[in-house]
Amino acid sequence: MNFSDVYPAVPCLTTALSGPLEHLEAHLLSRQTEIERWFRQQWQITPAPFYASVDLRNAGFKLAEVDTNLFPAGFNNLNSAFLPLCVHAVQSAIERLHETANRILLIPENHTRNQFYLESVATLVDILQKAGYEVRIGSLLPDLTSPLSLNLPSGRIIHLEPIHRQDSYLKLSQFHPCLIILNNDLSNGCPPILEQLAQLVVPPLSMGWSTRLKSNHFSCYTAVTQEFSQLIQADPWLIDPLFRNCGEINFMNNEGEECLRDNISSLLTAIEQKYREYEIPHRPFIIVKADAGTYGMGVLTVHSPDEIRALNRKQRTKMATTKGGQEIRQVIIQEGVYTFETWGNPPAVAEPVVYLIDHFVVGGFYRVHKGRGINENLNAPGMHFEPLAFANSCMNPDQHLAPDAGPNRFYAYGVVARLALLAAAREMTLPLPVTKSPC
Amino acid sequence: MNFSDVYPAVPCLTTALSGPLEHLEAHLLSRQTEIERWFRQQWQITPAPFYASVDLRNAGFKLAEVDTNLFPAGFNNLNSAFLPLCVHAVQSAIERLHETANRILLIPENHTRNQFYLESVATLVDILQKAGYEVRIGSLLPDLTSPLSLNLPSGRIIHLEPIHRQDSYLKLSQFHPCLIILNNDLSNGCPPILEQLAQLVVPPLSMGWSTRLKSNHFSCYTAVTQEFSQLIQADPWLIDPLFRNCGEINFMNNEGEECLRDNISSLLTAIEQKYREYEIPHRPFIIVKADAGTYGMGVLTVHSPDEIRALNRKQRTKMATTKGGQEIRQVIIQEGVYTFETWGNPPAVAEPVVYLIDHFVVGGFYRVHKGRGINENLNAPGMHFEPLAFANSCMNPDQHLAPDAGPNRFYAYGVVARLALLAAAREMTLPLPVTKSPC
Repeated sequence: MNFSDVYPAVPCLTTALSGPLEHLEAHLLSRQTEIERWFRQQWQITPAPFYASVDLRNAGFKLAEVDTNLFPAGFNNLNSAFLPLCVHAVQSAIERLHETANRILLIPENHTRNQFYLESVATLVDILQKAGYEVRIGSLLPDLTSPLSLNLPSGRIIHLEPIHRQDSYLKLSQFHPCLIILNNDLSNGCPPILEQLAQLVVPPLSMGWSTRLKSNHFSCYTAVTQEFSQLIQADPWLIDPLFRNCGEINFMNNEGEECLRDNISSLLTAIEQKYREYEIPHRPFIIVKADAGTYGMGVLTVHSPDEIRALNRKQRTKMATTKGGQEIRQVIIQEGVYTFETWGNPPAVAEPVVYLIDHFVVGGFYRVHKGRGINENLNAPGMHFEPLAFANSCMNPDQHLAPDAGPNRFYAYGVVARLALLAAAREMTLPLPVTKSPC
Repeated sequence: MNFSDVYPAVPCLTTALSGPLEHLEAHLLSRQTEIERWFRQQWQITPAPFYASVDLRNAGFKLAEVDTNLFPAGFNNLNSAFLPLCVHAVQSAIERLHETANRILLIPENHTRNQFYLESVATLVDILQKAGYEVRIGSLLPDLTSPLSLNLPSGRIIHLEPIHRQDSYLKLSQFHPCLIILNNDLSNGCPPILEQLAQLVVPPLSMGWSTRLKSNHFSCYTAVTQEFSQLIQADPWLIDPLFRNCGEINFMNNEGEECLRDNISSLLTAIEQKYREYEIPHRPFIIVKADAGTYGMGVLTVHSPDEIRALNRKQRTKMATTKGGQEIRQVIIQEGVYTFETWGNPPAVAEPVVYLIDHFVVGGFYRVHKGRGINENLNAPGMHFEPLAFANSCMNPDQHLAPDAGPNRFYAYGVVARLALLAAAREMTLPLPVTKSPC
């Protein structure tokens, strides 16, 4: 086998309407040098976050980011062939952030029974160790007073240790970390033990889901996609889901619902116009989700403003609280993007998730979901999906193949995911919202 | 497939005497974090060269560098699965060297018929393009006045263009490069067109084989391996071939041969002592090669000082000139390292070659050579070898596997290759030899 060999087979994903997207993919391919140059400039202006996973939706006529997680799980779902890419990228990231760092404290979510999540943590530890760092796991579990070892289905064992704070430093027993990596999305707010630390913490606490607003992220994403689309001379709508947001909402007592319905109505009109322009024979839909807070609970698919009025008590309760039990007072109203990628027979809906470390795209996988529709969110609590690792790297475009051939489709994923990463990088430079106390 | 899957099968290389090396491999594994930390510190002090390939010899009881090429060919021999690693590493390297660079001029060797070499150039161009750079190939061929397209066996085409010099800048027709990458080892000396350029040239011209001395490199390598061995508390001899060098030599008229024989004699004694210490039941041997100049022509295997006296006219002529036709006046007398790695049935001698871009190990392959002995040089002009790409990355050690299991052996290769890279990095900071005119 050598570099000139044919590329490995690509998952047989069928895209129903490939017209405009193929157009976009061809654009991305033909302007690859300009695109990469532009990204290089952007990372000099706004350094990339430490890591991220980006949920994409591929409607064939549109390929867009729908969510960017700055505390990614799911590293265990990546193709093991690309583990060395993660190792290199982590080395680059940490050399840039803290060039003398040696000992790393990883702080995961407080899960002890979610074995999918724990496998991801074990993989992350493996990556950090292979990159040449001493890594230990400190847990925020309130009742953890002595080390806890957990056996995983893969045969690996992870050790959770209680964290101690000494002045403005975190430490474990006989372990003084130089760098703290958060893999806990702080859905429940920022615990006091993490506040005002002298050690470098990545990502910054302000990016926790309790303070971070999706509307900020998507404002940044819209700005990024506008600039980018000008560069490649394409319609930004092809990569950007339209959105609106309202003021305060209270689903339990119908407060703010008029604003919500008005926004849904005007957003649907805007999407309809785009669908007409591109002759897309589908019904527009909208996703309503909590502006702060991670995957919900609070995620609603609507096709008309009237559906809001018709919400029953159970649905309203579901919309009123998010993962960490936080009350939803602000929502983002976002254009729904159909998933026209399917896998298997009978076809199951597939949604790409792209992983990035520093500014490097290190891999990805598809969430393959048999029980869901093409207009539904595929990432909700308790949801079961089958991961299908990307067969190709996202940095391996091939000008000699068709624009929608595997390596080129993965390149397109990588470009859109990096636009989302850049939006997150810019978001990190925004002033914190005044209504939330910064950690 | 996911990260926790078993590792792919490793080439079935049999190592005759695995004792001390397994000891070394176990050492490297157990001290991985310290080793990686040490390398990180070293790259901060002495940045890595742009790229390199390092020839190793694995005697089972010893794993040592025998040559480091700073203008590597053979990129086409690497495992295509690791192409993305090369892409990432090139991005890191060029971001560090010239963060606004966009257009790259690659200057290859003057070969037009060596298709193995041209495939390597095509792969290098592919890597640079995938990394997001505009790349064109400028040739130093003296008679090239218009662009020349060459069709390669892989189906790829490469375009060689004449280089023009304007003041202190190189350009091609309608192409003004920001960065010049040399893949020409300057065996014939430095052409005036490359002298005193305002553009950044990597690797620097002083590293061309016409000025670079192997004895400088191996002095640096010895210093590096001493420091490293202190870190891991191992005998430096396990990774360092002993060497000596003489003053002026003239093989045609026997000048300087006494010094040569004396050095061979004392070096053989030193090796014998080490062989006794480790109870190695083999006969020590020595490689005599040109101090300046690339793979030779001038490479001789000797087991006793008397063999020098007995050289016939043909052998003397062969030793007196190197690849570029340069006269050999200085030689390096180096401990020969047996190759006890074999591949296939009947077993053929296999020699690992490790590739590095910036400070990243990006892959490697074995030179598998049916017609050669375990004590012979496997890299000489016109030599035919079968490349066998490494199945694993060199940054994927696994503490749960045996020290000499595939991923761990590749890690050991990667460590020793990085020691050689560090030696080359230090070599680049040495003052140029006064007898040679710097470019």
